[in-house]
Amino acid sequence: MIYPKVLEELINNFKKYPTIGEKSAERLALATLDLTDEEVFNFSQSILNAKKCLCPCKICNSLTDKDICDICSDENRDHNIICVVEDYRSLLSFEKAGNFKGVYHILNGLISPIDDISPEDINISSLVKRVDNLDNPELILALKSSIEGQTTTLYIKKIFENKNVSISRLSYGIPMGAEIDYLDVLTLDKALDDRKKIS
Amino acid sequence: MIYPKVLEELINNFKKYPTIGEKSAERLALATLDLTDEEVFNFSQSILNAKKCLCPCKICNSLTDKDICDICSDENRDHNIICVVEDYRSLLSFEKAGNFKGVYHILNGLISPIDDISPEDINISSLVKRVDNLDNPELILALKSSIEGQTTTLYIKKIFENKNVSISRLSYGIPMGAEIDYLDVLTLDKALDDRKKIS
Repeated sequence: MIYPKVLEELINNFKKYPTIGEKSAERLALATLDLTDEEVFNFSQSILNAKKCLCPCKICNSLTDKDICDICSDENRDHNIICVVEDYRSLLSFEKAGNFKGVYHILNGLISPIDDISPEDINISSLVKRVDNLDNPELILALKSSIEGQTTTLYIKKIFENKNVSISRLSYGIPMGAEIDYLDVLTLDKALDDRKKIS
Repeated sequence: MIYPKVLEELINNFKKYPTIGEKSAERLALATLDLTDEEVFNFSQSILNAKKCLCPCKICNSLTDKDICDICSDENRDHNIICVVEDYRSLLSFEKAGNFKGVYHILNGLISPIDDISPEDINISSLVKRVDNLDNPELILALKSSIEGQTTTLYIKKIFENKNVSISRLSYGIPMGAEIDYLDVLTLDKALDDRKKIS
């Protein structure tokens, strides 16, 4: 055994994280020793706290340390506009951009027959219930452009077909700042199909 | 505030690690929630344990959870051959390679007038004492080829000049497997200077 036992344990714990391999785990474990006693204690506690206190919001399924998340309980947001996202990270991206003033619904996955994920496995039924309780609901489907994303988008669209719900999806197209000649064929085709009249 | 408080605290704690920025810290913090309760508890404990139990070996200054590290207390190793390295990570590299059967001495830094690090700031005096107690000492200076590494190498060589100590340094040259035409000029010059007769 190369490492002292307690160091090896810490390295093995870091290795449980995705994308953290042997080398990174060793680097992080050694960096832990450079933190102050207080920092190490706080880190250790905050790991336990996060795991203990964070749970899904009862309304939108995002992460919260309360029953209802800050967004769902914010009266200044438009609760009629629901942005449907795959996961909590997508929500964070919108919140960092900071311009969306509606609320969210987190599916926790996308429909994928190949991976045996059917509509019942993701958070769609609670979305239907939510929407049914709204007067003038609008859904924005902000799912990725993969087959799974498109399948889920179509499925949700079909569910709400005969209900009075306005449904849109994010636009596909050229990312801002991208060089046209570096774009993949699919994106370019989509951008051509979805071209917008200059007014 | 985008994040729930406990999540934000965990993210900030991850950000204290070198090379962990905002995005990685967020990713690691969220990955923590995917660990089992037991894994989270063990991780939290191992952080505290590592910080509490690991200390410098009284002989070679490497990391250990005892007074004297496993290498220094290993009677099968040659205690007359001391490999002098900058830090514990260098020691780990040699131990992973697995062919060196002597012992180590960890300087915890290199002499660097620019950064105001003088010979007294690194672990040289204890090296002198160690060597004085040996019958037939041999020092291998395994420091990097930077100015600081070379300064430290020359300094240590000078200290032991009039003592009966065999001193060598690692060879400079072409890394195994490297393409000659991709090598930097300095390395190529060194490899030429240090060329070895084919016998």
